Amino acid sequence: MSKTNPGNYFEDFQVGQVIRHATPRTVTEGDAALYTALYGPRFAVQSSDAFAKMLGYDRAPVDDLLTFHIVFGKTVPDISLNAVANLGYAGGRFLAPVYPGDTLSAVSEVIGLKENSNGKTGVVYVRSTGYTSDGTEVLDYVRWVMVRKRDPGSPAPAPVVPDLPAVIDPQALGNAVPLLDSAKWDNDLSGSPFRFADYHVGERIDHVDGMTIEEAEHQIATRLYQNTAKVHFNQHTEAHGRFGKRLVYGGHIISLARALSFNGLGNAFHIAGINGGRHVAPVFAGDTIYAWSEVLDMAQIEGRSDVGAVRLRLIASRNQPCTDHPHKMPDGSYTGDVVLDFDYWALMPR
Amino acid sequence: MSKTNPGNYFEDFQVGQVIRHATPRTVTEGDAALYTALYGPRFAVQSSDAFAKMLGYDRAPVDDLLTFHIVFGKTVPDISLNAVANLGYAGGRFLAPVYPGDTLSAVSEVIGLKENSNGKTGVVYVRSTGYTSDGTEVLDYVRWVMVRKRDPGSPAPAPVVPDLPAVIDPQALGNAVPLLDSAKWDNDLSGSPFRFADYHVGERIDHVDGMTIEEAEHQIATRLYQNTAKVHFNQHTEAHGRFGKRLVYGGHIISLARALSFNGLGNAFHIAGINGGRHVAPVFAGDTIYAWSEVLDMAQIEGRSDVGAVRLRLIASRNQPCTDHPHKMPDGSYTGDVVLDFDYWALMPR
Amino acid sequence: MSKTNPGNYFEDFQVGQVIRHATPRTVTEGDAALYTALYGPRFAVQSSDAFAKMLGYDRAPVDDLLTFHIVFGKTVPDISLNAVANLGYAGGRFLAPVYPGDTLSAVSEVIGLKENSNGKTGVVYVRSTGYTSDGTEVLDYVRWVMVRKRDPGSPAPAPVVPDLPAVIDPQALGNAVPLLDSAKWDNDLSGSPFRFADYHVGERIDHVDGMTIEEAEHQIATRLYQNTAKVHFNQHTEAHGRFGKRLVYGGHIISLARALSFNGLGNAFHIAGINGGRHVAPVFAGDTIYAWSEVLDMAQIEGRSDVGAVRLRLIASRNQPCTDHPHKMPDGSYTGDVVLDFDYWALMPR
Repeated sequence: MSKTNPGNYFEDFQVGQVIRHATPRTVTEGDAALYTALYGPRFAVQSSDAFAKMLGYDRAPVDDLLTFHIVFGKTVPDISLNAVANLGYAGGRFLAPVYPGDTLSAVSEVIGLKENSNGKTGVVYVRSTGYTSDGTEVLDYVRWVMVRKRDPGSPAPAPVVPDLPAVIDPQALGNAVPLLDSAKWDNDLSGSPFRFADYHVGERIDHVDGMTIEEAEHQIATRLYQNTAKVHFNQHTEAHGRFGKRLVYGGHIISLARALSFNGLGNAFHIAGINGGRHVAPVFAGDTIYAWSEVLDMAQIEGRSDVGAVRLRLIASRNQPCTDHPHKMPDGSYTGDVVLDFDYWALMPR
Repeated sequence: MSKTNPGNYFEDFQVGQVIRHATPRTVTEGDAALYTALYGPRFAVQSSDAFAKMLGYDRAPVDDLLTFHIVFGKTVPDISLNAVANLGYAGGRFLAPVYPGDTLSAVSEVIGLKENSNGKTGVVYVRSTGYTSDGTEVLDYVRWVMVRKRDPGSPAPAPVVPDLPAVIDPQALGNAVPLLDSAKWDNDLSGSPFRFADYHVGERIDHVDGMTIEEAEHQIATRLYQNTAKVHFNQHTEAHGRFGKRLVYGGHIISLARALSFNGLGNAFHIAGINGGRHVAPVFAGDTIYAWSEVLDMAQIEGRSDVGAVRLRLIASRNQPCTDHPHKMPDGSYTGDVVLDFDYWALMPR
Repeated sequence: MSKTNPGNYFEDFQVGQVIRHATPRTVTEGDAALYTALYGPRFAVQSSDAFAKMLGYDRAPVDDLLTFHIVFGKTVPDISLNAVANLGYAGGRFLAPVYPGDTLSAVSEVIGLKENSNGKTGVVYVRSTGYTSDGTEVLDYVRWVMVRKRDPGSPAPAPVVPDLPAVIDPQALGNAVPLLDSAKWDNDLSGSPFRFADYHVGERIDHVDGMTIEEAEHQIATRLYQNTAKVHFNQHTEAHGRFGKRLVYGGHIISLARALSFNGLGNAFHIAGINGGRHVAPVFAGDTIYAWSEVLDMAQIEGRSDVGAVRLRLIASRNQPCTDHPHKMPDGSYTGDVVLDFDYWALMPR
C-alpha cells in the first residue's frame, strides 16, 4: 500500500462526509508581507496597524484573500487532487477578522454529488470552513469541482445538487469587521475620496493598470498557500500536458484583480462575501492581467451606520486593457480575453 | 467623473502645496526578511537583534533603504504618475531608527516648479517626509521629476528653483543612530576589520561581485514598496514602449549596489544622509549589476566619539565589472555602462 | 591592501584553526514565511504554533533546513569563497529548536587538510557550529570542500583526514525536540496516517510530485541565507563559466526534495541528524526536481517513547520522475539524472 496521497476520486465522496484537512497554518506578518509583495495591494486597513486600530480593529487584519487562499490550499489534497476543473464558488462569507498569529485550519463537508453523463467524471460540491485554533469560524464558502472517477464502470450515486444562493443576503455580511469609528476614516490616507454614497448601481470602473505574471511569482504564491495542485509547479510534466506549460492558480488572478481594483475602489476595504466566481479561461506566466468592476447592487446593513455593502462584479482580462469593459458576447459566452468573473460584496465606509 | 487616479499633471502643482499620501504602512519582520532575500545585505546591525541591542539599539532597525523605498513608493501616485523622468535626489536625512512594528506615512511639500522650454513638461521639486504614527520624522529628502503638462497651452508658472545643498552638513547626521557602545562592536561578527580610521579620502573600492536581476525580483520588490509606477509591471504595454520591456525601479539598483558594497564597506552600517543621486541609465531584467565606491570625504560628528561619517560615491554599472572604476568620460558624460551615481554619508564605528 | 574579502585559499587554513563568522542573523517569521513560499513544506509542527504548542514546543520552530542554510551561508565567505567543489557533509546534529526571534551565529573549526596530488587544490574539512545569542548550540555538522591554492608552489601541509562517523548514533538524536505529548498528535491535521511503526527498513517511497526551479526563486532563497557564493548570482560572468549559466545552491535542492518528501513522509516532522550528503550533479533554473526516499534503518531512542528515529536516504533527480527509484549503476556511479544523495535521521511520532 502506497504511503503517498493519491487524492480522492469521485467514488470516494459521499454526501454528508466531513473531511478535516491538513496542515494547520499560523498566519504571520511574513505571510502578509509576501502577499503585499506578490500583488501590491494598497488598502489602508490591511496595510497599517495604526490605521486599523484607530478605526476599532485590534491591529491590521490580513488580506481577506490571503485567508481564502490558505483555507483553499488546505482543501486541495483531499478535494481536488484529481480534479479536471474548478467549476465555481458560491456562498462565501468572511466571518471574523484574521490577524497575524492566528492559526488557520479547514474542514469540508460534501454537500452535493452529480455524475456526469460521460461516466468518467462527476461534480463534487463542498462547503469548506476555515477556523482558528480556538474554534472561531473565519470563512466559509462552497466550491464545486469536476473530479475523475477511479473506475468509469462504478455506479453513479443518487444525484444531489445543493441549492446555492445566487447572492449572499447583505444582512449576513460584516461579521469580520468590528463596528468602526468611521469619523476617523481618513480619505487622504486611504487613498480615495469616494465613500459608499459616491457609487451607484450600474457604474463601471476600468482599473486601468496591468500586471504581468512571472513563473516565479505564481509559484511562490501558490506554495505560500501550501496549495499542492500539480499543474502549477511542474514544467517537466506540463510541457506534455494540455497547455504545454504551467497553469497559474486561479486564486492568483483573483488577488491580482482585487489589488488592481484599488485604483477606483480604494475605500472598498473588505471582501465580506463571495456570491460567485468563475475562472473563465486559463492564465499563464507572461500574461498581463487587467481588471474592471461593475456595481451590481448597493445595500445597507441593519445596525451598521459605519459601513455599507457594495456588490461588485470584478472581471479580469488577459493581454487586453479593460477600457471597453470586456465581458460577454450576445450569445452569453465570454469574450476571448476574459479570464475571471468574480461576484462579491465589498464593504465601504459611509 | 472617473474614480481612478489620473495622477497629477504639471499644472496641478503649486509651490507650497502639501500633499498627504496614501497608504500608511506598518513595516514588519516580513518586510525585513524580503529585503534580505531580494538584495542579500549582510550588515550586522540590521541583521541581528542581538548585535544591535548590544550596541544600544532597541533591536535591529530595518535597512535604511527599505524605509526610503516605502516612503518613496507612497509619493508615486501623487507626484510621479505622469512623470517622464525621475531627475534626482538631494538633501536626504535619516532622522530616527525604524523598527518592525512602526507605521510609516509620508507627506510631500512642493518646493519648486519650472516649466521646460518645450512647453510640454515641467520640473517639480518636492520635499517628502516619512514619519511614524506618533509623528516622529524618520526621513526627509528632496527629489525632482519631469512631469507632463495636461495641456501644452496652459501658462507657465513663475519658476521657483529651490536652493538645494550639494552635501548634507555632517553635523546634521546621526539622529537615526543611538549613542553606540562601540567598544562592543565585534569586527568578526560585522564581517570587516576596517573601521572609520582605516579609510581615506580618494580611496576607491571595487566591490567585485555582480548580481543579475530577474523580472520577478524587481516586481516583487517594487510591489513590496507599494510603488505603482506603471513602467515596472506591464509587459503588455511596455512591449510597445520606449524600451520594449519593463524598466527596473531605480531604487532597486540603489539597494543592490548598497548590498554589494558590503564587500569592502562591511562596517559602513548606516546611511545617514543622501547628498545626491542620479539614475544615469535604465536597467532591465537580465542585466547584471556591479558597483564600486569612492571615499569623497570623512567627517567627525560633534559629540559622537562612537561613529564617524564617510561620504561615499556609489557607482553602479551594468554588465561591466568595476575593476576600472567606470564613471565619467573627459567631457563629463557618463560612460555607457554606468547606471547609478549615488552620493551619500555612511556612518562607521570608530 | 584591498578592503574586499578575497576569501581564504588552501594555504590559509590550519588544523585547529577556529573561525568566527559574520553576520549574526535574527531568524524571524518573515524568514519562515519565505521558506514556505520557496519550497512549499507542509509539516504541521513547523507550520502551526497551535499544533506545536499542543505537543510541547514553545511555538512552531523554524524548519531545520532553514537553520542549516543560514548557518551554512555564514561559513561561505570564510570557507568556500575559493572552493572548486563542495564535496560532502557528515556528522550533522540538530541540538536545540530554533524559534523566530533567535539570533544565529556560526563558528567553524578546521579539523582536516589534505592537499590534492595535482598541487593546485586541497581538501579542507571543517566542523561548523550554529548557536544562538545565549550560547546555545543549535546545529553542528562537518563539511569538506575542495579549495584552490593561492600558489601551486607552496608546500603541502601534513595531511590530516578526520575520522568521520558513517552514521550518527541514534542515541545522540532528538535534542532539538522537547518531550512530546504524542497522544495529542492528530494524523488528520499532520496530513498522514503513518507513524513510526508503519515504516520498515528497505521501504522505498516515490514522492511523486515535481517542482520546476526558476532563477528568481533560487536567488531569493540563497540571498535569504546570506550565502555569497558567486556562481549563484552572476549571469554576466557565468555565461562564460563552466556551465554557461548560474548554478543553483545545493541546499536549495535539499529543501525542495525534503518538501516533496512530505508526500509519503508527512509525519517525519524533524531532521534530527545528517549522516551524509552529496551533491551528485549541478542543477540549473528550468530543471524540475523529483525525489524518492529509502528507509535505511529504524531506531528507538532511549528514554523517548514519544518519537522514533528513521534513517532515510533522500534521492533527488532532475527532469526524471522517481517511479523507478533512480540511484546508482552497477559500477557504483550515479545514474545521470540523480542530483542529490542525502542520508539523514528523521524523527516520527510513535
